[in-house]
Amino acid sequence: MQYYLNGFHPGDPVMSPSRAGHAGILRPDLPDEVDVLIVGCGPAGLVLAAQLAGFPSITTRIIERKPGPLQLGQADGIACRTVEMFEAFGLADQLLNEAYWVNETAFWHPDPAAGGITRTGRVQDTADDLSEFPHVIVNQARIHDYLLRSMQRSQTHLSPEYSLDFRALTVDPTADYPVTVTLHDELADAPLTIRARYVVGCDGARSKVRKSIGRELHGTTANHAWGVMDILPLTDFPDIRFKSAIQSADAGNILLIPREGGYLVRLYVDLGEVTEASRTVVHAMTAEDVLAVANRVLQPYSIEAAETVWFSIYEVAQRVTDAFDDTAGRGGDPHVFIAGDACHTHSAKAGQGMNVSMQDAFNLGWKLAAVLRGLSDQTLLHTYSSERHPIAQELIAFDREWSAMMASAPDPAHGGVGSEELEQYYVEHGRFTAGVATRYRLSPLTDSDAAQSLATGLEIGTRFHSAPVTRVADGRQVELGHAARADGRWRLYLFAGQDEEEVFELCRWLTEAPTSPIVRHTPQRADIDDVIDVRAVFQRSHDDVELGALPRLLLPRKGRLGLTDYEKTFSAVTKLARDIYAARGLDRTTGCMVVVRPDQYISTVLRLQDRDELAEFFDSVLLPQR
Amino acid sequence: MQYYLNGFHPGDPVMSPSRAGHAGILRPDLPDEVDVLIVGCGPAGLVLAAQLAGFPSITTRIIERKPGPLQLGQADGIACRTVEMFEAFGLADQLLNEAYWVNETAFWHPDPAAGGITRTGRVQDTADDLSEFPHVIVNQARIHDYLLRSMQRSQTHLSPEYSLDFRALTVDPTADYPVTVTLHDELADAPLTIRARYVVGCDGARSKVRKSIGRELHGTTANHAWGVMDILPLTDFPDIRFKSAIQSADAGNILLIPREGGYLVRLYVDLGEVTEASRTVVHAMTAEDVLAVANRVLQPYSIEAAETVWFSIYEVAQRVTDAFDDTAGRGGDPHVFIAGDACHTHSAKAGQGMNVSMQDAFNLGWKLAAVLRGLSDQTLLHTYSSERHPIAQELIAFDREWSAMMASAPDPAHGGVGSEELEQYYVEHGRFTAGVATRYRLSPLTDSDAAQSLATGLEIGTRFHSAPVTRVADGRQVELGHAARADGRWRLYLFAGQDEEEVFELCRWLTEAPTSPIVRHTPQRADIDDVIDVRAVFQRSHDDVELGALPRLLLPRKGRLGLTDYEKTFSAVTKLARDIYAARGLDRTTGCMVVVRPDQYISTVLRLQDRDELAEFFDSVLLPQR
Repeated sequence: MQYYLNGFHPGDPVMSPSRAGHAGILRPDLPDEVDVLIVGCGPAGLVLAAQLAGFPSITTRIIERKPGPLQLGQADGIACRTVEMFEAFGLADQLLNEAYWVNETAFWHPDPAAGGITRTGRVQDTADDLSEFPHVIVNQARIHDYLLRSMQRSQTHLSPEYSLDFRALTVDPTADYPVTVTLHDELADAPLTIRARYVVGCDGARSKVRKSIGRELHGTTANHAWGVMDILPLTDFPDIRFKSAIQSADAGNILLIPREGGYLVRLYVDLGEVTEASRTVVHAMTAEDVLAVANRVLQPYSIEAAETVWFSIYEVAQRVTDAFDDTAGRGGDPHVFIAGDACHTHSAKAGQGMNVSMQDAFNLGWKLAAVLRGLSDQTLLHTYSSERHPIAQELIAFDREWSAMMASAPDPAHGGVGSEELEQYYVEHGRFTAGVATRYRLSPLTDSDAAQSLATGLEIGTRFHSAPVTRVADGRQVELGHAARADGRWRLYLFAGQDEEEVFELCRWLTEAPTSPIVRHTPQRADIDDVIDVRAVFQRSHDDVELGALPRLLLPRKGRLGLTDYEKTFSAVTKLARDIYAARGLDRTTGCMVVVRPDQYISTVLRLQDRDELAEFFDSVLLPQR
Repeated sequence: MQYYLNGFHPGDPVMSPSRAGHAGILRPDLPDEVDVLIVGCGPAGLVLAAQLAGFPSITTRIIERKPGPLQLGQADGIACRTVEMFEAFGLADQLLNEAYWVNETAFWHPDPAAGGITRTGRVQDTADDLSEFPHVIVNQARIHDYLLRSMQRSQTHLSPEYSLDFRALTVDPTADYPVTVTLHDELADAPLTIRARYVVGCDGARSKVRKSIGRELHGTTANHAWGVMDILPLTDFPDIRFKSAIQSADAGNILLIPREGGYLVRLYVDLGEVTEASRTVVHAMTAEDVLAVANRVLQPYSIEAAETVWFSIYEVAQRVTDAFDDTAGRGGDPHVFIAGDACHTHSAKAGQGMNVSMQDAFNLGWKLAAVLRGLSDQTLLHTYSSERHPIAQELIAFDREWSAMMASAPDPAHGGVGSEELEQYYVEHGRFTAGVATRYRLSPLTDSDAAQSLATGLEIGTRFHSAPVTRVADGRQVELGHAARADGRWRLYLFAGQDEEEVFELCRWLTEAPTSPIVRHTPQRADIDDVIDVRAVFQRSHDDVELGALPRLLLPRKGRLGLTDYEKTFSAVTKLARDIYAARGLDRTTGCMVVVRPDQYISTVLRLQDRDELAEFFDSVLLPQR
């Protein structure tokens, strides 16, 4: 955590000064013209808003049809990759403190001897070194709260405009503000028009923004129904505080998810495929009806609700749109995007929906910011749909397979899925459900893998996997990946080989050479790390790295006061046995440099000598500034 | 973190429900009669207030002469033991996130060859396994903020009454509210009288409460002066982000403390003994004068202030009062107490003042609550002065020695202290400065050490030293010591030996026997863990502990809804190599039980069979309730 760069201010250090003492949420006037209009205050919309709120030069507004923030229910699973993203927003601490941690997942199957169910095993939920963070569970409403607070703390102090309903939009690509949006103000009961450079529909499965750009969800027509309830239980089921996948012999199946606070539990009760004939019956089910189904599954155990906090019957099909913007496959640069449930719908069984939605937004946010800040060309925006659409397709395919396995009859002798098979599939797909299996394909943003062999564990196209290092300036053990904040900057990690002088020389070139990407792409009055943030990792102990001998780029003077930033340089000789060079497959002899995108995905791995390739890469994604 | 025990509520889970949506700080009417009146909103006063705010049956008020909360300056060192205490208040996470971590301390001495100063070494600041928390640094004002927030979140939503000046008090031990206090309302410019059962003076070195009970500070008459400044520095000093003890050949010495946020630094510049003759000169020194002294010490390096955030010249003598209440050594039960700087003053060199002050308050808080709630006899209150006075004396003795060493000429050949000697002394006293060397002497609260040999690493009279364990109900690795919250409860840790049945039997006896301390000392309608909170640690893996087979005491049903608390039982087979049984010197064969006070100090260690001794101990500190 760094702050006070531009001078000390009393009070909450993560609250920007001009906001200090200002607590109420007022509804400011909506301007006629905005840079970005976000439709919908779900997880995708709020991540996008939290990202854009950090740029005072960008005018962002986020609108929501409902009259206020979400209070209850909906999603609750937070994958490791999402916690990593929350860390970049400065929100991981409170999330980890409040949330339930999924440590092991229990599997329950029919007990052939005694009848009822029996535990067949527990598996470690997250493999060792999959992420520095655990898989956690917390109410979606709290996720919204965290993101809303992040927006409030930001330089623009953005807050949502509630009771504003999206109705329609038109696009005129030749206009300064190409998108004209018609809204309905529910408070004034009056129509409202706003013009935007970009509109992002984060307005859910029934997205009106999606319809307005003529995109449709495609996929299965069969709908699957679930009874979902958050209860404070009274039960003798012994794994009530473990995530449990429970299959009964003939009463159906349950996914049980312990929740934050030590008492609350969520049950997903499978109500099967919904037909036109059964729909009315299924949707008439009460919480008591669903709990009765759960009790039949749980035999010989029983469960009752001391309090039912939230209950819903929902049905879902596996569907995905053909593209995530208004122009993909049609020609022209996009001005309207969709994200989250507006693009993909599927079951809740793998806990993926909220996570993939937020990663959609994290992918799009920095790209919109880069274009609006004049750092990148607007062609960059094409990569949103081309990168995220395949991810949604993978998700749908996974969900189809996993849901079928969970719903199938439990006895493999009768064509169903056995407990071992289910557990094995779960473990094998752990990287996927943790959100760290995402790998973007070759594109302007994901470079060829010429030097991948120098860092085999930092795979190009995947998220930069953190590892513990020691900060040279203060000897503190930190996570290298946490140097990256959700601030729209590119990161260039320099891993020193045996010859440290190579890093020093590269830093001097980066600072001085007219062809250096930092010189070329950093605006005149900006700090030297404003566009590309360079971090160096040395193999020597931090005590042996002489601070005074470091190049200026690694001790940059920044901000209004020209203060020195001491947090650019790290040492990989940690107290932990696991060494980053070994854990990430780095070549100790030659070292390398790793280019990481603002959303923390690895764009390329290069040799420390590959200056031309580095310059060329950044030329392809950033505009010259001088 | 446990919550929702009495039902779910939306919003911030650590904010009590009735407070939800209530943001402003109003000045409520001060009642004529209160249980506890705390004078002074420093660290001691606020810890006491935060502790008492958790008891809705106790009427507490805290007053402060100044018009509002502290904004800047004063103390900044937070010892490991203090972070442990903050954890019990639910405040450690944000503190750790914001604060500077003291990882190593650097020592600088005169360079005999080149002149100026040179680094003689860096030492690890906190020994391995001294605490689960680091030694950190953060502005005292932030410490106040955390505690104020804790008060606001509590059931009583306590907030300070500012602009109220303490003037005088009288005590009539026979009255219901024995202490009559005269205040002056600075806002109304009018006197005010309030009656209290207990008054606690946390009103600093010039304490008027202390004077009103006829106590005086005794000690050295020689005052030592320091120039203290928080600056945003521009410097070439390479250890600017390490805590550094810097002794120059003849220009004096500095203690340099990096501060939170990565840029801010505090300098303590030694200005020597103050005589009547020199006082005027010393106090006329400006920030520039003090920085000039610092620059002479730092040669060949230099430092300037891009911004001076806070500056003060202060002088201090090593002094301590003869007792911490109104009756010690005089007869009768105490009604007026003093804590913190009101009791002890000393240099800032060892970073002890704020920490010892807060520990004073943590010692007193639960005792006042126990007496006011009718759980303990008021004779318990005698132990505050008898326990904390010796701690203050130890502190003064340490400070005298350490300050003298720091101030002495650096060359041992000329009678001063050598760099090695200084470093060695610093390391040897690491337990003391971390706040974990405190050991309360034999008293009703600190029992004889008959079974100390069963847990050699959990020394009777010292704080309960946490260790990592696995929670049985959800397989999560947690710190055993973090089960203890600042809630006034006693903790009884049952460490199972090879025969687990002993623990089960003991639990049944604790639940059912008329002579059980839980049966005897828990009020009728209270939860079973309301006075004595039992936690069990088994040596088997958590996967091998059958939840359904646990005794009722380890799965107690609590609260309005009768929900089951699943967080009482732990397993000591952790993924970490260090095992609690080994690390804390526990006897694996026989096990033991450890009684821990509400302020986390170990009262006694007993064999699991020692039921009579257990009952006897609690009879000596708790009143019968039925």
